Amino acid sequence: MASASPCSIYCSSRVFVRCSASEGGQGYHRSSSSSNAVRVNGAAHRAPLQVGAALETSISRSLAELSSPVLPPPPAAGERVRQNIPTEKQTVDPFRQALIVEGGVRYQQTLVVRSYEVGPDKTATMETVLNLLQETALNHVWMSGLLGDGFGATHGMIKNDLIWVVSRMHVQVEQYPIWGEVLDIDTWVGSSGKNGMRRDWLIRGRNSGDVFVRATSTWVMMNKVTRRLSKMPEEVRGEIAPWFIDRHAIQEEANEKIIKLDSNAKYVDSDLKPKRSDLDMNHHVNNVKYVRWMLETLPDHFLQQHQLSSIILEYRKECGSSDVVQSICQPDEDSVPPEGNVSMVNGPSLLPEIISGHHSLADALQQWPTKYTHLLQLKAGDKHEEIVRGRTTWKKKSYKAP
Amino acid sequence: MASASPCSIYCSSRVFVRCSASEGGQGYHRSSSSSNAVRVNGAAHRAPLQVGAALETSISRSLAELSSPVLPPPPAAGERVRQNIPTEKQTVDPFRQALIVEGGVRYQQTLVVRSYEVGPDKTATMETVLNLLQETALNHVWMSGLLGDGFGATHGMIKNDLIWVVSRMHVQVEQYPIWGEVLDIDTWVGSSGKNGMRRDWLIRGRNSGDVFVRATSTWVMMNKVTRRLSKMPEEVRGEIAPWFIDRHAIQEEANEKIIKLDSNAKYVDSDLKPKRSDLDMNHHVNNVKYVRWMLETLPDHFLQQHQLSSIILEYRKECGSSDVVQSICQPDEDSVPPEGNVSMVNGPSLLPEIISGHHSLADALQQWPTKYTHLLQLKAGDKHEEIVRGRTTWKKKSYKAP
Repeated sequence: MASASPCSIYCSSRVFVRCSASEGGQGYHRSSSSSNAVRVNGAAHRAPLQVGAALETSISRSLAELSSPVLPPPPAAGERVRQNIPTEKQTVDPFRQALIVEGGVRYQQTLVVRSYEVGPDKTATMETVLNLLQETALNHVWMSGLLGDGFGATHGMIKNDLIWVVSRMHVQVEQYPIWGEVLDIDTWVGSSGKNGMRRDWLIRGRNSGDVFVRATSTWVMMNKVTRRLSKMPEEVRGEIAPWFIDRHAIQEEANEKIIKLDSNAKYVDSDLKPKRSDLDMNHHVNNVKYVRWMLETLPDHFLQQHQLSSIILEYRKECGSSDVVQSICQPDEDSVPPEGNVSMVNGPSLLPEIISGHHSLADALQQWPTKYTHLLQLKAGDKHEEIVRGRTTWKKKSYKAP
Repeated sequence: MASASPCSIYCSSRVFVRCSASEGGQGYHRSSSSSNAVRVNGAAHRAPLQVGAALETSISRSLAELSSPVLPPPPAAGERVRQNIPTEKQTVDPFRQALIVEGGVRYQQTLVVRSYEVGPDKTATMETVLNLLQETALNHVWMSGLLGDGFGATHGMIKNDLIWVVSRMHVQVEQYPIWGEVLDIDTWVGSSGKNGMRRDWLIRGRNSGDVFVRATSTWVMMNKVTRRLSKMPEEVRGEIAPWFIDRHAIQEEANEKIIKLDSNAKYVDSDLKPKRSDLDMNHHVNNVKYVRWMLETLPDHFLQQHQLSSIILEYRKECGSSDVVQSICQPDEDSVPPEGNVSMVNGPSLLPEIISGHHSLADALQQWPTKYTHLLQLKAGDKHEEIVRGRTTWKKKSYKAP
């Protein structure tokens, strides 16, 4: 039962907080008690983090649709069985080319990068990477036979009215896979501090074994009645701890706090409106659209010359179809490479690991990392409410921009 | 060699005509001779249909990247072999779960609908369907070992400077597959009139064998020097005809001509601008974005209550990243169901096939097809130039809109 822990997990990453601007917060129960509150992303979050009842209904309905056994029973009158999703734990999924390994704790799937998953430079886009992370996390849960058990909640979580919500995601791309590349994607879960859970991923090239992408995400528990974050009860820890692996896809130092930008930032895109095609099956703007909005705020000439090598997302609030969104972006002053002539004067300030392996200082400067801080927020009456904060790190493309 | 015919085919569907507004038409050779002109989409197209030299360069580069053998040779210095694409004909592609069947003329691939490929109603979107059609067509070509041979041109085509361009696409959805559904997709080519080629597709559910999607597309030859459409030389017909199957995914009557709309149409969306993420590997706005623009012009309440059951696209001109696009849309007056009360007075006008199988007149009206005509055009100086004309057919959703 402990492998129920990852259940619904990535689902929640796209849906975890409801948009009060569009939803009005009606129907939610709130509690003013703070005895069980926890700190996430450096701030105590209570009311702003709300998992809507609609989410639960929505997922429940999809679970019902997806829970037919591998060998489908004869269709009932007026109903067609169209699924091939196990309700019991499976170790092999031939159609998805997936395996459960390491005694059930690690999921591995083989995929090929498709023609429509690459951008103008013929490599997979960050959006594709995020899509594949979501897909493999959900498939991991499916193969555990647990997608129908209540959003991955363990018995102890159900007893305590707890559900999972995602608070943070960090994706590092070492190399973007190219069109037609065969990928092996691994995902697993682990502990995160006293009250959280991690889900990590590794994406490798089948031919070379090279790691292309490393990713980690953090999940916390929320009381679905009070809509407030919760500590992890000892009872629940006892259930899920045996399924955790102490293996980190990314060796992170202490989490750097992402500062909150205001509208004095260098780049501001206002009046961004979700389209119907931006909504996922939970009727919220999907995670990939968030990243698209963030990146489109950067100037085109920058995007042509640079490649995104890392993105960190701190989720605050979900965005619904009727919200109007503002995307704000600010470069780190000390991360912007010196403009104009590259002279030796700049040499001493270069980090040794940046210089190492490069033939010249000019090469090293080409690789100089450039960092940006991002904020997506929505208008709620006279003020703004944060949807997600972001940090991106870029490196200069080593080839001519097409 | 004849199976070279489908080569690059779907590629071209996304790139076949250059945007004169953004590209200025420089560098193209044009001929005023009309001896070899053909009629496409009911009109003789000459100068407006231009395949750019950049396209060729672009695809050539991608072909070079993709042409490593199944068993990769040791990487050359400074170069990594990351592909797993056959350069010789294969009958099985284990990673894509694909087979070449019927003596090499039919390609079949098994796929699972992914979590991010479904919309708010948890069924695959039309965009997903179009993506999968593109993917399987390209994979068919890859498995033929011909992706590196010059855009699918046969020896006779190369001798005559001919390439393939797509002129029309028709997709009929009988049922949208749902999240997690296992699909078998078949694709093959056939003749189309005297000078064209068809590529057809069938998408079926693995469990039920039901047909979900039928699609057909039409391709013609263009002289890559004069940029003008060309008749199919007898020499080329002799090469490719043996690979054609006389099997139609859709039994079409004579192609209905799509009328050209003007700005007096009911719905007009102007100033649509492609984003960087809308560009495909050929640096043009991709086919899926066209359809998104078309559909987003329809009112939201209509989209909530109706499901797209058929789309026909007639391609005229490609759209580049700097173009400003207008999407125009007009409902067929006689296809809009009667508003207000449904009375028996309307009965006699219902088509028998619509009534057949329904329990009541109200049910029948629920299924009344609704048709729209579409036009995407771009501003080129003072006038507009057509990108694509479209026709969509809709049916009322049988379930409550979420």
